[in-house]
Amino acid sequence: MDRKHNYLYGIVVMTAMAGLWPVEAPADEGMWLFNNPPKKLLQEKYNFAPGDDWYLHLQRASVRFNSGGSGSFVSADGLVLTNHHVGADCLHKLSTKDRDLVAEGFYARTPEEEIRCVDLELNVLQSIEDMTARINAAVQPGMSSAEANQARRAAMNTVEKESLDRTGLRSDVITLYHGGLYHLYRFKKYTDIRIVFAPEKDIAFFGGDPDNFEYPRYDLDVCFFRVYEDGKPARIEHYLKWSPKGAEDGELVFVSGHPGRTSRLNTMAHTEFLRDRTFPHTLRKLFRWEVVLSTYSAESRENARRALDDLFGVQNSRKARLGMLAGLQDPSIVSRKRSEEQQLRQMVQKMMEDAGQKAAPTSAGRPPSAALLPQDFGDPWAGVIAALKVWDGIYYDWDLLEQRSAFRSQLFGIARTLVRLVEESGKPNAERLREYRESNLESLRFELFSEAPIYEDLETTLLADSLSMLAEMKGFEDSLVRTVLAGQAPRERAARLVEGTKLASVEVRKKLAETGPEAVRESNDPMIQLALLVDPPARDLRKTYEDQVEEPLRQAYAKLAVARFAIYGTEVYPDATFTLRLAFGQVKGYTEQGRPVPPWTTFAGLYRRAEEQGNVPPFQLPPRWIEHKDRIDLTTPFNFVSTADIIGGNSGSPVVNRNGEVVGLIFDGNIQSLVLDFIYTEQEARAVSVHSAAILEALRSVYRTDRIVSELLP
Amino acid sequence: MDRKHNYLYGIVVMTAMAGLWPVEAPADEGMWLFNNPPKKLLQEKYNFAPGDDWYLHLQRASVRFNSGGSGSFVSADGLVLTNHHVGADCLHKLSTKDRDLVAEGFYARTPEEEIRCVDLELNVLQSIEDMTARINAAVQPGMSSAEANQARRAAMNTVEKESLDRTGLRSDVITLYHGGLYHLYRFKKYTDIRIVFAPEKDIAFFGGDPDNFEYPRYDLDVCFFRVYEDGKPARIEHYLKWSPKGAEDGELVFVSGHPGRTSRLNTMAHTEFLRDRTFPHTLRKLFRWEVVLSTYSAESRENARRALDDLFGVQNSRKARLGMLAGLQDPSIVSRKRSEEQQLRQMVQKMMEDAGQKAAPTSAGRPPSAALLPQDFGDPWAGVIAALKVWDGIYYDWDLLEQRSAFRSQLFGIARTLVRLVEESGKPNAERLREYRESNLESLRFELFSEAPIYEDLETTLLADSLSMLAEMKGFEDSLVRTVLAGQAPRERAARLVEGTKLASVEVRKKLAETGPEAVRESNDPMIQLALLVDPPARDLRKTYEDQVEEPLRQAYAKLAVARFAIYGTEVYPDATFTLRLAFGQVKGYTEQGRPVPPWTTFAGLYRRAEEQGNVPPFQLPPRWIEHKDRIDLTTPFNFVSTADIIGGNSGSPVVNRNGEVVGLIFDGNIQSLVLDFIYTEQEARAVSVHSAAILEALRSVYRTDRIVSELLP
Repeated sequence: MDRKHNYLYGIVVMTAMAGLWPVEAPADEGMWLFNNPPKKLLQEKYNFAPGDDWYLHLQRASVRFNSGGSGSFVSADGLVLTNHHVGADCLHKLSTKDRDLVAEGFYARTPEEEIRCVDLELNVLQSIEDMTARINAAVQPGMSSAEANQARRAAMNTVEKESLDRTGLRSDVITLYHGGLYHLYRFKKYTDIRIVFAPEKDIAFFGGDPDNFEYPRYDLDVCFFRVYEDGKPARIEHYLKWSPKGAEDGELVFVSGHPGRTSRLNTMAHTEFLRDRTFPHTLRKLFRWEVVLSTYSAESRENARRALDDLFGVQNSRKARLGMLAGLQDPSIVSRKRSEEQQLRQMVQKMMEDAGQKAAPTSAGRPPSAALLPQDFGDPWAGVIAALKVWDGIYYDWDLLEQRSAFRSQLFGIARTLVRLVEESGKPNAERLREYRESNLESLRFELFSEAPIYEDLETTLLADSLSMLAEMKGFEDSLVRTVLAGQAPRERAARLVEGTKLASVEVRKKLAETGPEAVRESNDPMIQLALLVDPPARDLRKTYEDQVEEPLRQAYAKLAVARFAIYGTEVYPDATFTLRLAFGQVKGYTEQGRPVPPWTTFAGLYRRAEEQGNVPPFQLPPRWIEHKDRIDLTTPFNFVSTADIIGGNSGSPVVNRNGEVVGLIFDGNIQSLVLDFIYTEQEARAVSVHSAAILEALRSVYRTDRIVSELLP
Repeated sequence: MDRKHNYLYGIVVMTAMAGLWPVEAPADEGMWLFNNPPKKLLQEKYNFAPGDDWYLHLQRASVRFNSGGSGSFVSADGLVLTNHHVGADCLHKLSTKDRDLVAEGFYARTPEEEIRCVDLELNVLQSIEDMTARINAAVQPGMSSAEANQARRAAMNTVEKESLDRTGLRSDVITLYHGGLYHLYRFKKYTDIRIVFAPEKDIAFFGGDPDNFEYPRYDLDVCFFRVYEDGKPARIEHYLKWSPKGAEDGELVFVSGHPGRTSRLNTMAHTEFLRDRTFPHTLRKLFRWEVVLSTYSAESRENARRALDDLFGVQNSRKARLGMLAGLQDPSIVSRKRSEEQQLRQMVQKMMEDAGQKAAPTSAGRPPSAALLPQDFGDPWAGVIAALKVWDGIYYDWDLLEQRSAFRSQLFGIARTLVRLVEESGKPNAERLREYRESNLESLRFELFSEAPIYEDLETTLLADSLSMLAEMKGFEDSLVRTVLAGQAPRERAARLVEGTKLASVEVRKKLAETGPEAVRESNDPMIQLALLVDPPARDLRKTYEDQVEEPLRQAYAKLAVARFAIYGTEVYPDATFTLRLAFGQVKGYTEQGRPVPPWTTFAGLYRRAEEQGNVPPFQLPPRWIEHKDRIDLTTPFNFVSTADIIGGNSGSPVVNRNGEVVGLIFDGNIQSLVLDFIYTEQEARAVSVHSAAILEALRSVYRTDRIVSELLP
């Protein structure tokens, strides 16, 4: 194999060459950029070499759910396939006490019955342009870190505005390799999205939290939306065809989706920061929120419905984070990470010694500065440590005030956005906080003016708890805490804020958004007043974070990226950034504690599992599945696993075969896959998908949704 | 009213005399000592003046459950009444996968069917003797705090051993007023306790966590045990008669039970320590444990059964602690506490100024030193602060290592007890850690050699989580953490410890307990080795805690107690200590947010509540209650509230009328009562009881337990 393919895997290979390890085939690793796909690797390992149109077709058939998730076009009439748990945000917002689309499912028998989501935005990636040189050029030598951050932000905001003005497309500069490259992504944006079909939650999320991140698995985690333009179904050129039979065992498959975040390029010190600071703190919050939401939910069925989506999110994060933390606590994983870092350090050391003596060859594919290490390379590992030290000093305050852990309320979130929107809008685009840049305002307003229901009792419960957490963490004598609580107990303060604010009304929000900072400052809305009160310290913390943490990290990681490009070539992939990536792998079972786990489950297995667990929630089958059991072909493969490299955010990604046909739908990773946040392994880690045949069989035999079936198989 | 009755209430009255407050009747406040009952108060407010035999009868009819709770004798043949949730510990330990006594309930139709609990010890208070002078005399002027602690412990261990040898009764020196008085309590001890009747958990704990600490309420939280001696039902002289009709609205009632702990005498600094350190940390642990236990339970019905008792305990604590913390965060409560402290400080200041000028009168009822403040009074408030500062410095380590938060495993607990038992047994009684004092060894061995089942999977889950918490809190690079984890991830380490240890076997425990420290040190049991490893730092922390926190606190609070006795008289009650206390109050409803809450609920209300909540858990009625609904008199009062001053530990206490007859059974306080930990209020705070008529009606009409009914009403 070619060690340039993969810097993470490279270590194993180089050690192997030293005779310590058996030589292995290259791994099915990587969340690849669509403008730099792993062509050589696919050619060498799988003898697969599609043309550029193959990649472009898959790229433009892929859809990003801005609510968090992935999807794909599966018909010329704008039908979009995704997971039930991705669509649940929309279903939840459309539900009421008397009509629970999440629990009961939904099927639009006619186009007229398709219901529009209140605030769902979908993005489709049209083009990628490298802006690294321009963004980096804005940062002059000798600039302080704060100046550099400001200059870089100005350049990014400006590039995006220019692109938007020129193309009319949503334009985002994406930071890759933690600062190694800056690419301009242009998206076609859809905001008229309607729900077409969703099964009942009990089958979509069969097994609930106990089976989440587990395998074998039995979930119909699927739903269909339709994208509209000008009030009519959008005409879609690039959509994926359906494979009724799916993929064979061992077959090569691809996943095109939006992995949210990985931390594989982190230095060891940064990884330890995650283990010792970020993960424990996040887990403490998640444990707390899970209990608060669970107790709220237990009070009545309507409470349970209101909190369901939030509770699912919290439980899902909790289980994922616990798995990741267990990985970080595992000495075998830590030592692998440590060896990789030592390897890179040694290679850099060697390059430094050689530097100036010989010129390395350049190639078109590499960033211009990658041929040799820059003069000012210094010690980026120490740079990371220095930045993390600053972060550590402000971590809890920053999380409480700027990240809003102390104000876990949608209404507070709206108040903050309004307060900042009117203030930032008065500044030149180049100087604004990133989310208020000109090119983002349309999407921001779309979300801010959402008609999604806000439940006052739930708001009060969550705000009271988070205000209490603020006081517990900072102490009651802290002057900000005293001002925030205004002489009241957290529960009372939360109740008065939620009762008193008018921000539940979208009209009120719109009116405030049209005014200026003075009018907002004079508002007598208590939630606005609270947001104003918290804003100065929150902004200070953000500035410290951006200037002294984010920017130094970006600079340090940019250097490490340059070193990696120089050593391992440009055929390496960046950490995940919730932008479109291509992963690949094989349909493949695995061995767990000596026991073989086959790649597929079947509908028959679903019924067995329900029976074993006594048919009680979360293992209770929906009535339709019990009534129509005899219509279902129980041998149909239901869920399957593959070695594709995925992570949270990939939910809803299509799994396609060499012909670009849908053979499955990503909805989860197994518990062993959670370490993929830090390191790739294909020993037991697997992506979990719904099989394309299972989706068809359910649509035909259980739900009788002829309209969708004939659209998938015209 | 006489302000001497009650120092807490005194402030209101004294302010009232200053014209700021309306004059009120004295409150139904106090957890009174049986050797110092509130005779004057009862006489004045309720015109009730029973003889000493009335008190002695109630005292000896009251039972302490050492598993945590209260009870009472209700027949001459040793029948004991308590709560289902107090008896659940025994029921849980007797249950198996195929026979779940907690869920299904239990009724012994004949004496032979009564089942013996595996490790339940009941105590009945026989006598109280004041030992203050002797214990305090052991502490010489000029002793360091460590020496004072050692001398005091020696005196206590010795007094108890002498009493045990002389009387054969369990003898415990109880520290009252946080160090103001030392009383020797002698208990008759029963260890052959058999279960007679328990209803299904679904009716005993109807409403589950959502309704816990709430009112109105509908719980048959009752069960009956029988005490045996020499294999036969014990003959009981002092037992309570049953009142089939219960108490009237407004009627005076008494509660005789074992409130576990209150913190009313704490200084403000100490109260703030609870608010800022103890409660937040405890809640973080509880949130975490609740999630861990809930996820374990969700995996299967058998898991749920195994974890049920532990999960209930955690959820119960979490809800209680949240309520208490909300009280501590409430400015109105904090300012009441603050005024009380200022009041006491001013009074002391005045006494200090007067001291030496005149001699205050002494009376037989007061401790000898209470007439005037001692010469070395100093500033006990500052003494508390100094002690808390030491505690703060070791708080997390002490909690993790000595309090075992880092080793949440029964098997580890057994290992620690064995390691310490063999070591402490080799020391003179006077020098031993308190729990290994001669007079306690029989009870300690009874618990250590319990045949209660230990579930390896649950042990592994909890130990893995707590080891991870240790690493998260102290960091992975901490040398103790590294040694404890032995190069393994927490999950792996926990699994190997639980697999490897032999301590699940009582025989193995007994053998080890018979050896000496050397043999234990040489044991190859990995859990014993872990306990040995952790013991030196844990003991160091304990020594620091006892010498530099506990003893200085005791000395400071002893001075404050002297000041209170001098100012308010001896007719004040000490904070709760899980020893027998007498509370009193009226059956009385209250007003909540303008809405009147009547004192009673009925069986009809139970059926309504189940219906409203859709008859789903935890609002699902047991089949018997659905089948036999037509046999039940639905107008029977079910639960009721009173103003009696209770707290956790009072669960299972009998509620009696002036005739000493059982009119109810304490099982909870409402949510407003949780602040009783810090301060008494009877505005909305209420004790919640099962009505004596409801118990009879259920026994007769639902369960047809004629044997018990005829024993209660002979």
